[in-house]
Amino acid sequence: MNTAADASKDPIATPSDVLLSDAQRSAVARLIEALGTEHVITDHAQLLDHGHDTGVDDAPALALALVRPTTTEEVAAVLAIANDLVLPVVPQGSRTGVVGGADAVPGAILLDLTLMNRILHIDVDDQLVTVQPGVITGDLAAAVREQGLFYPVDPGSVHISSIGGNIVTNAGGMRCVKYGVTGDSVRSLTVVLADGTVVRTGHDSVKGVAGLDLTSLIVGSEGTLGVVTQATLALRPLPGEAAGAAALFATLEDALAAAAETASSARRPSALEMLDQRTIQAINRFNPKAQLPDDAAAMLIVESDEIGRATDDVAEYRRIFENHHAVRIDLAQNAAEVDALLEIRRQLHPALYADFGTLLTEDIAVPRGRLLKLLRVIEQAAADTGAPIATGGHVGDGNLHPVVGYVAGDADSLARAHRAYAQILTRTIELGGTITGEHGVGTLKRSALGTEFSSGLLALQVRVKAAFDPRGILNPGKKL
Amino acid sequence: MNTAADASKDPIATPSDVLLSDAQRSAVARLIEALGTEHVITDHAQLLDHGHDTGVDDAPALALALVRPTTTEEVAAVLAIANDLVLPVVPQGSRTGVVGGADAVPGAILLDLTLMNRILHIDVDDQLVTVQPGVITGDLAAAVREQGLFYPVDPGSVHISSIGGNIVTNAGGMRCVKYGVTGDSVRSLTVVLADGTVVRTGHDSVKGVAGLDLTSLIVGSEGTLGVVTQATLALRPLPGEAAGAAALFATLEDALAAAAETASSARRPSALEMLDQRTIQAINRFNPKAQLPDDAAAMLIVESDEIGRATDDVAEYRRIFENHHAVRIDLAQNAAEVDALLEIRRQLHPALYADFGTLLTEDIAVPRGRLLKLLRVIEQAAADTGAPIATGGHVGDGNLHPVVGYVAGDADSLARAHRAYAQILTRTIELGGTITGEHGVGTLKRSALGTEFSSGLLALQVRVKAAFDPRGILNPGKKL
Repeated sequence: MNTAADASKDPIATPSDVLLSDAQRSAVARLIEALGTEHVITDHAQLLDHGHDTGVDDAPALALALVRPTTTEEVAAVLAIANDLVLPVVPQGSRTGVVGGADAVPGAILLDLTLMNRILHIDVDDQLVTVQPGVITGDLAAAVREQGLFYPVDPGSVHISSIGGNIVTNAGGMRCVKYGVTGDSVRSLTVVLADGTVVRTGHDSVKGVAGLDLTSLIVGSEGTLGVVTQATLALRPLPGEAAGAAALFATLEDALAAAAETASSARRPSALEMLDQRTIQAINRFNPKAQLPDDAAAMLIVESDEIGRATDDVAEYRRIFENHHAVRIDLAQNAAEVDALLEIRRQLHPALYADFGTLLTEDIAVPRGRLLKLLRVIEQAAADTGAPIATGGHVGDGNLHPVVGYVAGDADSLARAHRAYAQILTRTIELGGTITGEHGVGTLKRSALGTEFSSGLLALQVRVKAAFDPRGILNPGKKL
Repeated sequence: MNTAADASKDPIATPSDVLLSDAQRSAVARLIEALGTEHVITDHAQLLDHGHDTGVDDAPALALALVRPTTTEEVAAVLAIANDLVLPVVPQGSRTGVVGGADAVPGAILLDLTLMNRILHIDVDDQLVTVQPGVITGDLAAAVREQGLFYPVDPGSVHISSIGGNIVTNAGGMRCVKYGVTGDSVRSLTVVLADGTVVRTGHDSVKGVAGLDLTSLIVGSEGTLGVVTQATLALRPLPGEAAGAAALFATLEDALAAAAETASSARRPSALEMLDQRTIQAINRFNPKAQLPDDAAAMLIVESDEIGRATDDVAEYRRIFENHHAVRIDLAQNAAEVDALLEIRRQLHPALYADFGTLLTEDIAVPRGRLLKLLRVIEQAAADTGAPIATGGHVGDGNLHPVVGYVAGDADSLARAHRAYAQILTRTIELGGTITGEHGVGTLKRSALGTEFSSGLLALQVRVKAAFDPRGILNPGKKL
């Protein structure tokens, strides 16, 4: 019972409360009952502030409420309420994604998991860690390192992104070339389904084939199948001290041939990155100390962390680079020197922001042997559209991040960037590649899914989604 | 129109054709129309012969027909017919499974994929191979080795099992401890769904997060979700020449502590196997040349295939074994000597057949640190039931294969074996393990699924199955 007279005392009153439907008002009241007023936020400024990730700069949609559960049971209560009332739910971690996967949809419940940020157990004997989803991935890696263990997956966002977000996007990074993507480290998950049912998928043992592999299905599902509230991850022994090398090449052909030979060697580098000429030049401007040759067509950075063999590995990589006519090779003899090399790679984004102003970052992948063709596709898109494009990426995995620049507020410039972006995606598919190697689909790439998948596969994915979430409340408008 | 008079000329006449339902008669006629008479077999002797795998020795059910498609289109035609008429379909490869996963169900269409046995393409640059499902895994490994590439997964059945069967059971083996199970090498699959729709899942690139990960869902699904008709698998560079060691220990505690330290080292052995005392004694009787000490509690066999480091790795493993009081260590300096050590491990089954007569082979897995507890569970089950049990397995993965002996035809002996088997499964779950590490569920372990999974998880799996196969025609009574 609410009247205008007592609205000011209504715990769920907001500037827009008069616009709420009965179901929405009921939902907010039930959410407060379940979580307490402190963890149910309906203030518009906060809703808008929490309404987007870092990828899409459109004005966010206005959600109904932001809820901040602290336990699996509270998450289950939120989903049971939402499912009952058929209200959309957008699960959110640190909202550091770049494809709009955590963006609000109108009237949604924003399910913020960042208060569930405890490392629950580190099992040194079994090399396992059990965590809540809100733990920052870098904090997790640091905590297990103190116990002599190694969590290898290092997305560029490692110090700001949460492990739950890493899991549901199947995040990658520089070390994937050796250690695999996030999903390769996931053993078991606690997942709250759309109706509030709590299931535990997978197994804590290395191997296990009882039942269907629902764990891998949840990994990378971008919050559309369920909400991960706990994860047990496989750890590794600490690797050896890293050694590395950076090599500059006069042609893309040489650089790619050297990368292919390095990536396919039995020595398995722990990172193998590439920067193209435009990126090299941008980094030189951004950081004059880098002192890279502006006329080099490409730079490769390689790392080995093999125990007892890293220096020997790097000597072999150096030989490969020399055979492919490297014009300059810088060696890194220890972890600090390797990190200095990788720091150049990490300057790709800030340098290109400085150079281009505003960026569309692509995330395409092809089988490694087609990388040269893909780089030519990117050059052609730049030539055809006039959009400036610089490219770097994980050549060891065949995963490139072309960065398309545009001038904010210049409609023509933005249109050219979008044309370049679309042309690259189409040609990537034609090369047998994928529209997203590690960033995910979110809202940004949904329209491109039809170019990669057949109608039969799209329909099957929708049916699988319905098996998890028959009312379609979980992250609607994303991924599928 | 069939009458008794013209039955002998009926191309689908069988001794039991008078028992066929209209749907069944119609199905056989349509199958012949689709595949030709040569590839549709209704002879009872052949149906019974093809009606089982190697796991369960009960009399097989009588199928309706055995069909032998040669193309994806023919598989699609078979499934469209079966789905239309709601007839069960049992996909079959080499039928070397051990849990009844390929066993006939009454009136089923046995979908034999062994004629689809071509290696379609080996891509040396991208380190990929594309194959049909009926290729024998060992043949695949040999073919890529000729191109300087390595398919690492080596289930015990590698020379008789088909890659399609390996994929849908997610087969393991001795090298998984380093290289992962079959699914870890699968990039993309062509899958025929129950209604005959053909989809391609996954991506040929190393990374890719467009869409839900249906590839991993098909892997290990034991033919319940779709029929794999083509697969693209990731290959690796050839490893270095192997070195290895075998160590004998006076106590299980010493052996397991040595195994744990070896498995968790950053050197990553490419095999780490264990045999218990009963197995050692059986191998000594089976192969007197083995000359193992009958009083040893356990034997470990370790292999390294790291390029440029294998000998150094084995020296380190030797140090670990010595620190844990190994009573004898045999070193293997090259691949031939390593193979001689592994041959002892491969004699586990023939030796135990010779010793026990008839066997129930278990396939349980726990996190590695709980292996000693699991071995005590097995000893207790033997003591409680009087059933003889010998154990070996992949200790590097926490995956053991206790082998329970019984006397064929002796009901009391069989009952004791089953009691032991059930007790081991229950205790494995209590230890946080799984009822099957690599063999699968099939028919053999279906009844145990409820001990490992919650009702919510079981129900979810059934809904996912229905999303793929709404009429429930694919391998009914298996896996789920």
